Amino acid sequence: MNNIIFEKYHGNGNDFIIIDSRNSNIYKKFLSDKKIDIKNLCDRQFGIGGDGVIFILEPDRNNYAKMIIYNSDGSEAQMCGNGIRCLVQYLHNFNKGSYSVSEYRIETKAGIKIAQYNNGEITVKMGKPILETKSIPTKIDTKINSIPSCLFKEKNFEQQGYAVGMGNPHLIFFLQDITKISLSLLGPVFEKHELFPEKTNVHFSQIINRDNINVRVWERGAGATLACGTGACAVHVAAYKLGLCNSKTVINLPGGNLIINWSRSEDEILMTGNAKKVFSGTYILK
Amino acid sequence: MNNIIFEKYHGNGNDFIIIDSRNSNIYKKFLSDKKIDIKNLCDRQFGIGGDGVIFILEPDRNNYAKMIIYNSDGSEAQMCGNGIRCLVQYLHNFNKGSYSVSEYRIETKAGIKIAQYNNGEITVKMGKPILETKSIPTKIDTKINSIPSCLFKEKNFEQQGYAVGMGNPHLIFFLQDITKISLSLLGPVFEKHELFPEKTNVHFSQIINRDNINVRVWERGAGATLACGTGACAVHVAAYKLGLCNSKTVINLPGGNLIINWSRSEDEILMTGNAKKVFSGTYILK
Repeated sequence: MNNIIFEKYHGNGNDFIIIDSRNSNIYKKFLSDKKIDIKNLCDRQFGIGGDGVIFILEPDRNNYAKMIIYNSDGSEAQMCGNGIRCLVQYLHNFNKGSYSVSEYRIETKAGIKIAQYNNGEITVKMGKPILETKSIPTKIDTKINSIPSCLFKEKNFEQQGYAVGMGNPHLIFFLQDITKISLSLLGPVFEKHELFPEKTNVHFSQIINRDNINVRVWERGAGATLACGTGACAVHVAAYKLGLCNSKTVINLPGGNLIINWSRSEDEILMTGNAKKVFSGTYILK
Repeated sequence: MNNIIFEKYHGNGNDFIIIDSRNSNIYKKFLSDKKIDIKNLCDRQFGIGGDGVIFILEPDRNNYAKMIIYNSDGSEAQMCGNGIRCLVQYLHNFNKGSYSVSEYRIETKAGIKIAQYNNGEITVKMGKPILETKSIPTKIDTKINSIPSCLFKEKNFEQQGYAVGMGNPHLIFFLQDITKISLSLLGPVFEKHELFPEKTNVHFSQIINRDNINVRVWERGAGATLACGTGACAVHVAAYKLGLCNSKTVINLPGGNLIINWSRSEDEILMTGNAKKVFSGTYILK
């Protein structure tokens, strides 16, 4: 076997190489054969280029598909909000013309995720937010409206910050104008802040109105990115708990919009967005 | 038309989207239809991703193909040493099985370029070096062994620098150990140095032996890059004129090796390297 058939998708600029292994032995080959290397595939000059690789596998019965997802550095991810939308759009395109599915039950390493497909918009249940400090984790020991919060002062920047967990930690600031801050200056400082023992994602947010929030993202380990799905959820949770927004908001990120719907602590957060096919291809295996 | 058929190649990590327009009207469509956008095609998250796009067109008779090349920012380039190797490897792969060609006459905006194909190695005539200060252009007013040269002192870095023109300007330093300098610190300082009125490419070079030179590249307008074909030529010319190397050297660049062959001012510089097909694909035109 000298080639890999793939399709390339992005969700809000977060881009993935999708390899459908349901009717081929390509995933088995990947596990057994060192020639298929995630880092090589994701390399943007020498490979296809991507933020990650998604393998689609046959699921157990009752489920629709199984998703195995790798980051571009070769590490395996449990789940990815932008990635699963790409997968669901792929599955929809794959079926097109024959039949359509409105609910996809996807097996992931983080459990079964249910995605609704509705006319190009994909809604994924993202789990419940975590506000308990030890589980976020954060060393912040004060709360505002049930959200861990304290005043942060770094590099002439002085703002109240809010911590929300989504399986990963998020630090959220609400500013008058997010275009005026230097992301490359402040991002690294707060990512590695001593109050976050496992580091943190950082979100500089601006409430436009009760239905719209603009966000600039600094991702833990990745720096400035075009979009962060769990981060959009965390920003909504903080803003909603503080009374700054309605239960459904549009989060405007550099790579596109996500709609977040959540108001009750006992409910999972619903994240809605789209995903686009960019190209299909055949990769030459060396 | 909703799709663009393409192939993706790289030469020393300098990567190009190749669109064969010899038997299609895709180039005409590109010129007349704003839907095909170079910036979109080259975008690494939302598009195919690439340093540039090469269209192959029917040449005038006597020539083999015509190359039109665009940079990722949408500007048209006259010629590109890494790009033309990608084109020639594409043409070789295209012919494979039917017939083979050892010499390709390629029409470019910089005139007809002749490329020799020999078992995966492609040799391109890169023109004669320019050592006249006004034509480089540089304001350096002293020469060493016919090369414009002076002592540069910036940011605790103090080294004799050499200027060579290859249609574009190059500033070359020879160091004991190029791994020890900060490219991101020194690159921008010398790129915009007052002695180079149109700015300059900068090369930090290390003579390994008379046949091998290691180079770290800072490209004008692009920053640290994996390889610079004209820069490899310029480094060889400076090293040869200074008596530091033989007439044929291997230039070791971060993205791979190039072989440069030149010793006489009246001759064109011969640059030999390879190029690889990475994948073929079909891009979805929105």
